[in-house]
Amino acid sequence: MLVRTVKEMKSLARNFKREGKSIGFVPTMGYLHEGHISLMRCSKKDNDITVVSIFVNPIQFGENEDLDRYPRDLERDLQICKDEGVDFVFYPSVDEMYPEGFSTYVEVEDLTDRLCGAFRSGHFRGVTTVVNKLFNIVQPDRAYFGEKDYQQLKVIQRMVKDLNMDVEVIGCPIVREKDGLALSSRNKYLSERERESALSLSKALFEAKKMFEKGEKNPEKIISEMKKIITSYPEVKEVQYIEIVDPETLKPKKEVERGDIIAVAVFVGNTRLIDNIKI
Amino acid sequence: MLVRTVKEMKSLARNFKREGKSIGFVPTMGYLHEGHISLMRCSKKDNDITVVSIFVNPIQFGENEDLDRYPRDLERDLQICKDEGVDFVFYPSVDEMYPEGFSTYVEVEDLTDRLCGAFRSGHFRGVTTVVNKLFNIVQPDRAYFGEKDYQQLKVIQRMVKDLNMDVEVIGCPIVREKDGLALSSRNKYLSERERESALSLSKALFEAKKMFEKGEKNPEKIISEMKKIITSYPEVKEVQYIEIVDPETLKPKKEVERGDIIAVAVFVGNTRLIDNIKI
Repeated sequence: MLVRTVKEMKSLARNFKREGKSIGFVPTMGYLHEGHISLMRCSKKDNDITVVSIFVNPIQFGENEDLDRYPRDLERDLQICKDEGVDFVFYPSVDEMYPEGFSTYVEVEDLTDRLCGAFRSGHFRGVTTVVNKLFNIVQPDRAYFGEKDYQQLKVIQRMVKDLNMDVEVIGCPIVREKDGLALSSRNKYLSERERESALSLSKALFEAKKMFEKGEKNPEKIISEMKKIITSYPEVKEVQYIEIVDPETLKPKKEVERGDIIAVAVFVGNTRLIDNIKI
Repeated sequence: MLVRTVKEMKSLARNFKREGKSIGFVPTMGYLHEGHISLMRCSKKDNDITVVSIFVNPIQFGENEDLDRYPRDLERDLQICKDEGVDFVFYPSVDEMYPEGFSTYVEVEDLTDRLCGAFRSGHFRGVTTVVNKLFNIVQPDRAYFGEKDYQQLKVIQRMVKDLNMDVEVIGCPIVREKDGLALSSRNKYLSERERESALSLSKALFEAKKMFEKGEKNPEKIISEMKKIITSYPEVKEVQYIEIVDPETLKPKKEVERGDIIAVAVFVGNTRLIDNIKI
């Protein structure tokens, strides 16, 4: 069932809570893929009711980013939700979420200074603000986020903890194509040649993991090898970062340990792609 | 009943909600006076359960402000709550509210640039952050704030609306001493001579209202008269602002209308006092 207003979504949520039903929530920007579907399936398994939101959140896009061309296909998204047995799709307009006079923002400091946060000023503020709103509207017991956006996951977990919100924020594994490419709605932007170069991210991450398994503990050596791999692909235009970080603080490690996160952000053509792996 | 932990307060609130009981909430920094008592009574009248919080919130105090000497008297406060039939007093420690690693802030823009916000950098960010947390912990249906802190009331209402929180934020009338002084925990700071000069605020506000009732619509004339009154008192050290503002936007008015707010902030000795009146 398609729900377009905050009021209706809140009233539905309130009724389910009153009946003692648990609500699972999958916030998305639409253009759904197997990654989103895996989140829906987790939610369906754990909860009585599953809500998916589809909202391309303008305030998390920077001025020179891809808000206007972000891919959209509501009809296809709704069919996917239906096929997966999603109970409600919350699909608000921008005016519904940000009416005139809107001026409140939720910001996580520190964690958001690093990795993507260092390159996308204001991005995480937009994310935490909209997710805070969505949590208040949908009232989920559990919310599901993909680990591809690892920093986003940690930032949201931090927000929920700091603000004493009653939601369990669950990270689900990255879903990849057979050849290793992490699923992302932005993969749609890639030409065939760029699609080939986009493999550089996962190739470098897998190689890094291999190096660690063989005993390499020096982050500089691993990062240098990754950089070599990534920049060997012809359509790679810019490597924004390659970092090996602590899984909780996201601070760079001096010696690599099991459980650390290796994260990369790369421009392939005009498309910014991110990926990561836990080692 | 005294509740010291977030966990216990949340669990109590969750149980009352499950039983369909309404929760009224009065957030305070303690050192309770008749103003607070009037809020408790409003809450008792409207709700099944009334929760008062006592928490001197460090993050809403500036570096040179009065955090360390802010008056406290828990025993007396608890007696007042008991006498008023308050069901629970939430009295968390600073560590309980801001454990190590805390780094999330809620900020209302625009409304907080004016009046007190222009003089107390970061103050309202501290207020909205703690109130957001308290609302998530106590889960109130209704929360009560004094109109003496008029800007605070509007900022919190804005936050609740923008973040789609499920709380009705209710403003209650200023409570005054017989001679007009608005009640405030900070009145304790005043010497006898200062207490006399503190009357300048209400005297000027009442005179302003009189001028308006007699037909004066020019804000400059009213403000100029108010300034004259206030600065005639010997212990008045600084007039931070005297403004006539729109009750919703808090923007200064060019022509005074019924329903506008006249607001003042004045240092009497070392004590910063605020007061306001709706005309």
